[in-house]
Amino acid sequence: ANIAILPGDGIGPEVIAAAVDVLADVARRHGHEFAFAEHAIGGIAIDTHGEPLPAATLAACKAADAVLLGAVGGPKWSDPKAPVRPEQGLLALRAGLGVYANLRPVSVHPRLAGLSPLKNEKLAGVDVLFVRELTGGAYFGAKTRSADTATDETRYTVAEIERVARRAFELARGRRRHVTSVDKANVMETSRLWRETITRIASDYPDVQLEHQLVDSMAMLLLTRPASYDVVVTENLFGDILTDEAAALAGSLGLLPSASLGEGRVGLYEPIHGSAPDIAGQGLANPLGAILSAALLLRHSLHLDAEAAAVEAAVESALASGELTRDLGGKAGTSDLAGSVRAALA
Amino acid sequence: ANIAILPGDGIGPEVIAAAVDVLADVARRHGHEFAFAEHAIGGIAIDTHGEPLPAATLAACKAADAVLLGAVGGPKWSDPKAPVRPEQGLLALRAGLGVYANLRPVSVHPRLAGLSPLKNEKLAGVDVLFVRELTGGAYFGAKTRSADTATDETRYTVAEIERVARRAFELARGRRRHVTSVDKANVMETSRLWRETITRIASDYPDVQLEHQLVDSMAMLLLTRPASYDVVVTENLFGDILTDEAAALAGSLGLLPSASLGEGRVGLYEPIHGSAPDIAGQGLANPLGAILSAALLLRHSLHLDAEAAAVEAAVESALASGELTRDLGGKAGTSDLAGSVRAALA
Ligand SMILES: CC(C)[C@H](C(=O)O)[C@@H](O)C(=O)O
Ligand SMILES: CC(C)[C@H](C(=O)O)[C@@H](O)C(=O)O
Repeated sequence: ANIAILPGDGIGPEVIAAAVDVLADVARRHGHEFAFAEHAIGGIAIDTHGEPLPAATLAACKAADAVLLGAVGGPKWSDPKAPVRPEQGLLALRAGLGVYANLRPVSVHPRLAGLSPLKNEKLAGVDVLFVRELTGGAYFGAKTRSADTATDETRYTVAEIERVARRAFELARGRRRHVTSVDKANVMETSRLWRETITRIASDYPDVQLEHQLVDSMAMLLLTRPASYDVVVTENLFGDILTDEAAALAGSLGLLPSASLGEGRVGLYEPIHGSAPDIAGQGLANPLGAILSAALLLRHSLHLDAEAAAVEAAVESALASGELTRDLGGKAGTSDLAGSVRAALA
Repeated sequence: ANIAILPGDGIGPEVIAAAVDVLADVARRHGHEFAFAEHAIGGIAIDTHGEPLPAATLAACKAADAVLLGAVGGPKWSDPKAPVRPEQGLLALRAGLGVYANLRPVSVHPRLAGLSPLKNEKLAGVDVLFVRELTGGAYFGAKTRSADTATDETRYTVAEIERVARRAFELARGRRRHVTSVDKANVMETSRLWRETITRIASDYPDVQLEHQLVDSMAMLLLTRPASYDVVVTENLFGDILTDEAAALAGSLGLLPSASLGEGRVGLYEPIHGSAPDIAGQGLANPLGAILSAALLLRHSLHLDAEAAAVEAAVESALASGELTRDLGGKAGTSDLAGSVRAALA
């Protein structure tokens, strides 16, 4: 299998190196052949190629079986008036690959409950899979700017909502058969279309229970009864906000992975943390978000379920008994924690 | 002073009755004359007048010194395909009164810390004043709908951002002199205009410190370090989401008030909770959100600062030693809790 590697900016290269090591271990151990090829994206691509998503990077990603990405952005490129920004590379890649369904699982490891801002009794049983629409909404709508006015258009078509809805219902069938759809149907027209469409699609999945919540209520409910949610499906911007909120429950963003899938073969895998410029280059970053993203890559793009489960079990064992990185309350570095995972995998 | 009373739907009439009793006590005790006149809004107005904001209601509110509102909405009127919805009445009232700055203070009473989903150590010192832009953004932009597509436009002008920014900086001067502005400037054009404008206005307030956060990060930071925020200013939709999230920290929505202010004289005061149809008509609703909204009314519209402080102190004492309503973990009814406040005020 051909895996495109996009380290990106900040801690991206460090955590991706750790994840590639793990994938190479998996290949050796299970007799697979994985070819890794690195490509530029984000701020570094602006510096080297003058654009945040060079055409060669997009072409290579489209031709690959899967894409593993670190993080993009940093203070060097964050002037809001800059003509191009690192994030545009990421958005263009998501759109270019057509990966409209962003899966973000959130659960809380018992050893890390102390790091969560939430009380322990709230955390018991938290196991949510967010399915965030990733290629529509305000992210990709028309924008205008004049001297005294700016606009952003949020746009959704029925087809865009249907496909992400189906993905959510399918995923719920492999879990607790419950879908919570989040919108702002009391205010937004796109949300009314969203709610109608999800409700219609739900009739094809009579074995899955559907619940609607308004985004403001959901921001509250994620704190007051987080364990009651199974699959949560929502549009791009609401998903951006709610998944970061939910991630805080896990005690650290550092260990949360994501998978972005479309109809095509190729999926995009990235930890949900950012480029963390404050600790970049120091060997301190938590590699688990990237390693767990690699596990999702094994499962969703390469269909190597046993190998994916083995990586997840190795992370679990490193979390249970290994030395942890600073974000997890320990003193270990990136390579120590990655080393525990690789040892557990061997 | 003339106070327009808009009880609205669900528990609205119950909590507003309690707040009006408190205002009447204040008038008697301090020798003021308050005239209260009730008007229809929301679902009940749809039933009685065929529209959620009858022209007579808006006219009466514009002519009043202040407006005290309960809540709007309920299952009876919540079909998303209904031609008119209760919420439209509330949005039209906010726009009609030009109340562009929605103030939502959030703090955590020590006696209620047990009800908060957050760990106690996170709650210490939480005292945030949200200033939510209330008459712009996706709430009031153009909407379109065809058979297979829906759109919502988010629109902000420099003038709209400036006036709410100034309000936030002015309020920060009476507090800890720190403003956090929340946007999504890495994706939205309106957010880039927002950030530029706030930054420019900040130079008129060199004594106030300004910090920018992205809305996704802020959803996380409100949980991981809530005590570090003083005044948080943001656009309409982000404010809707973040204030509900922050409200969850207080243990119950039931006791949180809001004030909506414009350039004009008249302000709109409403508890942030909804119409709670499940407990409506049973005398179980928490009246403190409405009573504390009445206190904000005394302060911001009637400039009766001592009276406002007296009401807040009475609520504080009822919370510290009185019987609490169910949402606060007690067994008292609306009138019991309102009675403790009135006794403390006497
Ligand atoms: C970097 C940014 C554009 C991105 C987003 O908003 O989608 C990030 O926050 C994320 O959630 O992946
Ligand atoms: C009822 C609804 C339209 C309203 C809003 O979204 O503004 C409510 O959620 C609020 O926050 O006051």
